[in-house]
Amino acid sequence: MFNIALFGCGRIGKVHAVNIAAHPSTQIKAVIDPYHEGAVQLANQYGAQVMSVDEALSDKSIDAVCICSATDTHADLIERAAQAGKAIFCEKPIDLSLSRVQSCLEVVEKAGVKLLVGFNRRYDPQFRTLRELFDSGAVGRAETLVITSRDPSPPPPDYVRVSGGIFRDMSIHDLDMARYILGEDPISVSAHGACMVDPAIGEAGDIDSAVIVLHFPSGVMANIINSRRSGYGYDQRVELHGSKGMLKAGNVREHLVEHWSDEHCAAAKPQNFFLERYREAYIDEWHHFVDVLEGKVEPQCTGVDGELALVLADACVESLKSHQTVLLK
Amino acid sequence: MFNIALFGCGRIGKVHAVNIAAHPSTQIKAVIDPYHEGAVQLANQYGAQVMSVDEALSDKSIDAVCICSATDTHADLIERAAQAGKAIFCEKPIDLSLSRVQSCLEVVEKAGVKLLVGFNRRYDPQFRTLRELFDSGAVGRAETLVITSRDPSPPPPDYVRVSGGIFRDMSIHDLDMARYILGEDPISVSAHGACMVDPAIGEAGDIDSAVIVLHFPSGVMANIINSRRSGYGYDQRVELHGSKGMLKAGNVREHLVEHWSDEHCAAAKPQNFFLERYREAYIDEWHHFVDVLEGKVEPQCTGVDGELALVLADACVESLKSHQTVLLK
Amino acid sequence: MFNIALFGCGRIGKVHAVNIAAHPSTQIKAVIDPYHEGAVQLANQYGAQVMSVDEALSDKSIDAVCICSATDTHADLIERAAQAGKAIFCEKPIDLSLSRVQSCLEVVEKAGVKLLVGFNRRYDPQFRTLRELFDSGAVGRAETLVITSRDPSPPPPDYVRVSGGIFRDMSIHDLDMARYILGEDPISVSAHGACMVDPAIGEAGDIDSAVIVLHFPSGVMANIINSRRSGYGYDQRVELHGSKGMLKAGNVREHLVEHWSDEHCAAAKPQNFFLERYREAYIDEWHHFVDVLEGKVEPQCTGVDGELALVLADACVESLKSHQTVLLK
Amino acid sequence: MFNIALFGCGRIGKVHAVNIAAHPSTQIKAVIDPYHEGAVQLANQYGAQVMSVDEALSDKSIDAVCICSATDTHADLIERAAQAGKAIFCEKPIDLSLSRVQSCLEVVEKAGVKLLVGFNRRYDPQFRTLRELFDSGAVGRAETLVITSRDPSPPPPDYVRVSGGIFRDMSIHDLDMARYILGEDPISVSAHGACMVDPAIGEAGDIDSAVIVLHFPSGVMANIINSRRSGYGYDQRVELHGSKGMLKAGNVREHLVEHWSDEHCAAAKPQNFFLERYREAYIDEWHHFVDVLEGKVEPQCTGVDGELALVLADACVESLKSHQTVLLK
Repeated sequence: MFNIALFGCGRIGKVHAVNIAAHPSTQIKAVIDPYHEGAVQLANQYGAQVMSVDEALSDKSIDAVCICSATDTHADLIERAAQAGKAIFCEKPIDLSLSRVQSCLEVVEKAGVKLLVGFNRRYDPQFRTLRELFDSGAVGRAETLVITSRDPSPPPPDYVRVSGGIFRDMSIHDLDMARYILGEDPISVSAHGACMVDPAIGEAGDIDSAVIVLHFPSGVMANIINSRRSGYGYDQRVELHGSKGMLKAGNVREHLVEHWSDEHCAAAKPQNFFLERYREAYIDEWHHFVDVLEGKVEPQCTGVDGELALVLADACVESLKSHQTVLLK
Repeated sequence: MFNIALFGCGRIGKVHAVNIAAHPSTQIKAVIDPYHEGAVQLANQYGAQVMSVDEALSDKSIDAVCICSATDTHADLIERAAQAGKAIFCEKPIDLSLSRVQSCLEVVEKAGVKLLVGFNRRYDPQFRTLRELFDSGAVGRAETLVITSRDPSPPPPDYVRVSGGIFRDMSIHDLDMARYILGEDPISVSAHGACMVDPAIGEAGDIDSAVIVLHFPSGVMANIINSRRSGYGYDQRVELHGSKGMLKAGNVREHLVEHWSDEHCAAAKPQNFFLERYREAYIDEWHHFVDVLEGKVEPQCTGVDGELALVLADACVESLKSHQTVLLK
Repeated sequence: MFNIALFGCGRIGKVHAVNIAAHPSTQIKAVIDPYHEGAVQLANQYGAQVMSVDEALSDKSIDAVCICSATDTHADLIERAAQAGKAIFCEKPIDLSLSRVQSCLEVVEKAGVKLLVGFNRRYDPQFRTLRELFDSGAVGRAETLVITSRDPSPPPPDYVRVSGGIFRDMSIHDLDMARYILGEDPISVSAHGACMVDPAIGEAGDIDSAVIVLHFPSGVMANIINSRRSGYGYDQRVELHGSKGMLKAGNVREHLVEHWSDEHCAAAKPQNFFLERYREAYIDEWHHFVDVLEGKVEPQCTGVDGELALVLADACVESLKSHQTVLLK
Repeated sequence: MFNIALFGCGRIGKVHAVNIAAHPSTQIKAVIDPYHEGAVQLANQYGAQVMSVDEALSDKSIDAVCICSATDTHADLIERAAQAGKAIFCEKPIDLSLSRVQSCLEVVEKAGVKLLVGFNRRYDPQFRTLRELFDSGAVGRAETLVITSRDPSPPPPDYVRVSGGIFRDMSIHDLDMARYILGEDPISVSAHGACMVDPAIGEAGDIDSAVIVLHFPSGVMANIINSRRSGYGYDQRVELHGSKGMLKAGNVREHLVEHWSDEHCAAAKPQNFFLERYREAYIDEWHHFVDVLEGKVEPQCTGVDGELALVLADACVESLKSHQTVLLK
């Protein structure tokens, strides 16, 4: 049984708490959150203790940390956990600054601890099946990849302001997904954007609609389409076109009951947001982390994966400004 | 170029008029209808003449008749056309009385003319594709056939009164379809019904919802589900289950544009009724009749097919009354 | 925390074991199975003890029993558990003999314990959503119900011999589903069948393909279509036609990735069998049983529901033999 | 009855020949083609005469021309027909050179004749329905448009060489579609491409896979995805995302019969290519041209529309070379 220190009791912290508790080999030992009441409540629910960062990291019985705190605390916590010899699961991103990510990863490397970065979609059964079919040769050689990712509704402008912008906050998942599916690293990035959904997002200095084109060494192009609002739930689709056809991962609907009436044949909307859509992915992600803890496998999504996704997101920012394709080294 | 005498200018007469005129080898020479104004209008539209029955049948230049008049005139017109040596296309049914059908077919046989009975669904591209796939062995040996046929909305009670009842008027198409797809004749019939849609149909002595079960010599069962109202357009589906899987012919939608919104993902309804749904079938049916006229093929749907469908419909009536399975010779 | 005695370590016993252990308010205290090795293994896995029937039922710390043993032991175990004052969850059926079911239920009633009969499909999120939409008036008044239920592949003849026959073993779920969705009890039953899938099933005295028609007091007809083999996974569908349209619960596919190729556009098959298809239903069923244990709700599926499903299955047997509609009191 | 001179007897000329002949108000009077045998054959089939360009244009009885000849003859024929006072239907493009298009349109304007440019997709019932729903406010204000257009298989390199390149030959339809649906003209164009399908296309100096991003004055972005090969038929889809949801026009399948088997649930492929997919569009296009001839409406797709589509295609070429967004005046 591995003892886990859980940093952060917000929405995503609670998701991981459920999965840590449900896994036969892990339990929550410590809960750490500046919001004391929330920490107490979560700790009580799972028979854990509320601790400070220092207490948790110096507790010898704690094997690993699960970092779900605010983004600007991730790099520090990773470094301190690494230095304390703990295995680390950290929600994406490591940091919004590339240099900070790089210095952080150096610390992790020196410490020699395991680090799994939480790009949840890599564990989604649909996308995983798509990749497995691709790897098995179902559509031959890859030619074009199209990733659609639309949130159900826009975030509040206050969130936008600290989010790092749509590319680092939202598209980063799709940039990672492109690398995950194709198994190569892009050589160039072009990004386009507009503020169509909510003027307040524009006032906060960001865009809410984006189209990204990546070129890969093999010649494959990846086309990412993002919006902060779909108007019909969480739209998460992948199309991979190859020399022998297409693989297409569709949305997961809220249910499978259709209602045919005098007006139309209505099916249910896609599941509303990431908590529902990626519920299974979060479970499988945690199972993978436990496999890492048990030494069975290496992390499928490393610090370098986190770094490279940020490199791509930064290149999107640059391309959007320059109206040019940005070449990557 | 074959000259055609068209009997009947109603809804279905107009459908055939368009197809006769559009076919490069046929043209409308005569239009016959007790409703004079309608006949004049249709004749003018296609450069044809209004004629009496006698005039049309004694006109040597007329090669064939297309009978789309009221049901109770079919058998008489078939006999007179046969005696006049004309090839005959007649809308289903030949008659609502089995003995009348049989005496009529004797006349046709004596006359030695070609007779094609209009079971339009046999020419539907969807059902035809299903049968071709079945014949090619796609699902192995047949096990169960499920036919769903629901009208968009109930007919007026006045129509119900002269229709011969749901089995002879509506189910007869599905009874023929079962024979067409499976290529065998049933050995027993069980019919169930209820009046759920419109009490006026019950008052007219009929039911509006029916479930029929047919047994075939090979052991296959066919399950027919009928309703005078779907509430969502014309519901026309066939499922054929075999030893190696299922073939499933679905509805044809009004269009293929989906509308995804905050409420649901809406697709268009099935095409509203038989004029839209079987538009292509009527065209192909006429092409087949022309092939018959040209001596290229024998009629795919003969007088005997019309007779057997009525035998099955009559057995449904008997089974509904007796609450028993009716054995067929 | 409720202590549960689990009777039976087979396939379905293992399903419930997982769910009992995963529920925060229940744990497995005792495992009972004549197959000692299996009992030991399961008990070890969940920290439970292997007990005899007597030991388990006389153990005061045990609050409830979960009966997953062979069908012919159900009624006895229910009676003994009732007399021992335990709350009872029992997999369907209570017994294959109606009189035995009735005597058993008398014992339960005298004992005054709670009994939940395991018709798992009542908890399926798809069928539940369909019923909720129907109850909310989405399609108006019910007119026809069509239930399709096809197993992926036929059971071995040895199983068929002790199964009670297709109606009591398989159709019983659909008969219960019809009552569950429509909220009324049928007034008549007609059943049709054939042995199409496997001659060995016929030699074992059973059929493998069935079509059932039920009439309800409101006039609604329910049409159940069963087969012991689909050839494409577990086919579980419900269509409810009403005065304002249709509700249609479709199959759950193995995954949502489509493969479009030069041959066709391929989607995944329906989930293979009940363990996958009703995984969530089994979880929700157990949650419901815990709610019953906690006194929050009454059982949604009582002994009487189990009895009535068997009455209907028996009527199917009778109708199949007599080729007549069987009236129910 | 309008007399039509048909220039060009190739694949697309034959499509229009059928439609001209089937329309009650038009007939083919003259057929013009340097390939004499083809002209004779087509003329015989429709009771028309083979003529030279001069003969046809000086024939007073000819009301209009239908230009389906080789692309490099379009502009000349348009000018000569305009000068002869004929109404003009011309297949896209007017010419591959923008200056030639402009000089040609000046001649047309001076002559004051009607000119309809053949962007067939504007008449497709699916895309038309999508635009009508959009215009009716179904999804509110437009935000993003995604157009997918993939040919079934790549053209021969010899065709590629004279085609003007993928943007002027293939994407031009999608560029026009974007303008048609959104009702505005783009302000910038970015184009990306690769040669993935067939190296011979690269050797012919072209690409075979393209991603285009257009920005419109309202802020809307249009994302066009092209490939010379789908591997599964003609992939023609449009998604319009707006402030209140999405409209999605899907592919038209070869038929609607599904085949469910032990491997998968297979549906038919999209219709194979433009002749099948846009059969109805070509008919409706010709009906529109006849309405123009009859003075009922103005051409829905003018010379200026043809010119603007070429401007956009030229901008794609420039953007692909410069790796920059090209601003339009």
